[in-house]
Amino acid sequence: MKQNRVDAVLKNLGDMGLSQMLITDPLSIFYLTGRMIQPFERFYGLYLNQKGGHKIFINLLETVPEDLGVEKVRFSDTDPYLDLVAAAVDPREPLGVDKNMAARFLLPLLHRGAARDFVVASPALDRARAVKDSQEQERMREASRRNDQALTALRPFIREGVSEVELAERLTVIYKELGTDGVSFPPLVAFGPNAASGHHWPDGTRLKTGDCVLVDAGCTYGGYCSDMTRTWFYRTVTARQRQVYEVVRQANEAAEAAVRPGVPLRELDRIARDIITAAGFGPHFTHRLGHFIGLEDHDFGDVSAAAEDEAVPGNVFSIEPGVYLEGEFGVRIEDLVLVTDSGCEILNRLPKDLDIIDG
Amino acid sequence: MKQNRVDAVLKNLGDMGLSQMLITDPLSIFYLTGRMIQPFERFYGLYLNQKGGHKIFINLLETVPEDLGVEKVRFSDTDPYLDLVAAAVDPREPLGVDKNMAARFLLPLLHRGAARDFVVASPALDRARAVKDSQEQERMREASRRNDQALTALRPFIREGVSEVELAERLTVIYKELGTDGVSFPPLVAFGPNAASGHHWPDGTRLKTGDCVLVDAGCTYGGYCSDMTRTWFYRTVTARQRQVYEVVRQANEAAEAAVRPGVPLRELDRIARDIITAAGFGPHFTHRLGHFIGLEDHDFGDVSAAAEDEAVPGNVFSIEPGVYLEGEFGVRIEDLVLVTDSGCEILNRLPKDLDIIDG
Repeated sequence: MKQNRVDAVLKNLGDMGLSQMLITDPLSIFYLTGRMIQPFERFYGLYLNQKGGHKIFINLLETVPEDLGVEKVRFSDTDPYLDLVAAAVDPREPLGVDKNMAARFLLPLLHRGAARDFVVASPALDRARAVKDSQEQERMREASRRNDQALTALRPFIREGVSEVELAERLTVIYKELGTDGVSFPPLVAFGPNAASGHHWPDGTRLKTGDCVLVDAGCTYGGYCSDMTRTWFYRTVTARQRQVYEVVRQANEAAEAAVRPGVPLRELDRIARDIITAAGFGPHFTHRLGHFIGLEDHDFGDVSAAAEDEAVPGNVFSIEPGVYLEGEFGVRIEDLVLVTDSGCEILNRLPKDLDIIDG
Repeated sequence: MKQNRVDAVLKNLGDMGLSQMLITDPLSIFYLTGRMIQPFERFYGLYLNQKGGHKIFINLLETVPEDLGVEKVRFSDTDPYLDLVAAAVDPREPLGVDKNMAARFLLPLLHRGAARDFVVASPALDRARAVKDSQEQERMREASRRNDQALTALRPFIREGVSEVELAERLTVIYKELGTDGVSFPPLVAFGPNAASGHHWPDGTRLKTGDCVLVDAGCTYGGYCSDMTRTWFYRTVTARQRQVYEVVRQANEAAEAAVRPGVPLRELDRIARDIITAAGFGPHFTHRLGHFIGLEDHDFGDVSAAAEDEAVPGNVFSIEPGVYLEGEFGVRIEDLVLVTDSGCEILNRLPKDLDIIDG
């Protein structure tokens, strides 16, 4: 068990007036124990209580290390495992549960009267996971470093006639060759007008002169996600493409320059949006500026006009302004930033100068 | 709405003593409406009642056709959508819900007293989905036809020095080129001793003379999954490899020959297992014979010693015996079969004769 992380979650639970929680999200259990188990259909849970007596419930089919630092309750597929869980829970108190806890586990516990009430308590975990400790920061740095390497390695494959899906699959191979855990989400590759569509998936479209090449991709390293976007141009670039590119780049860089502890997250969105609006493309920046990231590509928390939090050291989020001109092209430039004590560390180092590929 | 499928689910619900159900599994809603919506974090639900008055709850961000044939209730992210759901549910009756329904939707409905009780009612859907109608049969046939084509197209890429992950990614590209919806699960490619490990994922292992080449892969077509396994040998084959291959092939073919309406599913597992056991490899056939398949690669239902059902026309499941010799090699041969009125249709036509690749 990672005691500092457990303490943070227990403190957040206390702030919500809760004395106990049953955690069933495998990523949150990984966050607290440092060990990843993917239970698929089977039950897997970590029970925390303010008074101690934490327990982890794990099927006998899973291999687990001796030194988890928490009492293990093992069971087989035919054991009444929810009775074991109910026996651990204090029935006089409400029980916090994950927002995604499945009905097939939740309803039987409820029908047993295992707790006085059942309450969604995911914010206790979301808030703790939003502040990365030094080990997490190191893994996020490394994930983004390898993401930079991957996009660098992809560049020579950007040639006349290559298809979007071929580049996406090539990038997937590159991530594996770089010793990562694989993609953090299916790579997005879009050429020309396809890059202006918010919901485009890589298809058989082939690259031709004058296309923009938008690549939004990431890998996972040590359980932690990277995520970046670069937009290149193939062989030629029009004045309009150049103008849009420079506006998006300025929006990206101005927002990144403003990241420091205490800055309201909505202020970052405003800085980027003002630059794009002043250039006349405001209606074409159709999404929020960024999202938090960590064990999931989209961790809880966003960087938008509606965000109510301020940046704190250890936060990691994306800065990804974009302009999408339907039927023409789209540009998005995205880096991850880590909030430090005095400002921020930009985790992606791949250059952002206008880049015309002539391969 | 697909009225025959809705009627089947309502009948099954009635058999469970339920008058109403709230379905939140997007695949089950697709099954009943013919329209696929992937809501991600947002609420999406189909409410069915024995007395009629079915309703579908869809966020305004989703595009939906006019002619769904069921009353639509639209809502925005800021609307109190669970109040709308609660208003539709009969509070005097228990409500069936999906086994995977998330706590963040289930608990608020429960705290509102939206129904007299909440009951996991997934079996009503599972039982209906296990019997494919003619449109579903046609899609499953086509998905497996394209899977045959894909493995045929992959064969020329099986060459000295190619890596497992390269073949897996190549196969993913082939599926897209064949006009399928993509993979039904990440392709498994394993060479030599890797094929003997139940939990191997394609890695950088490179092909060499004497290796077996196990490929377990499938695609999705019109929403329906294919899934097949072939095991080839590269350049040479030992007497032991040949013996194991022939035993597995006989087990596969004998089980397939026994598929007909009324046959107990456990009997199919026994037929295959007896052949492998008689040859002395029983302890090395370490899994069930097969699983049901349809909208999901692993639909509810299995073909194992513990299965209690009999085959009925319209069932589609896999027949996939295997022998795994740790540190040496592994062989698995898998086809999908569709139970017909008089026997079965084998959906995969790719030959199963011992095939030594010399590329």
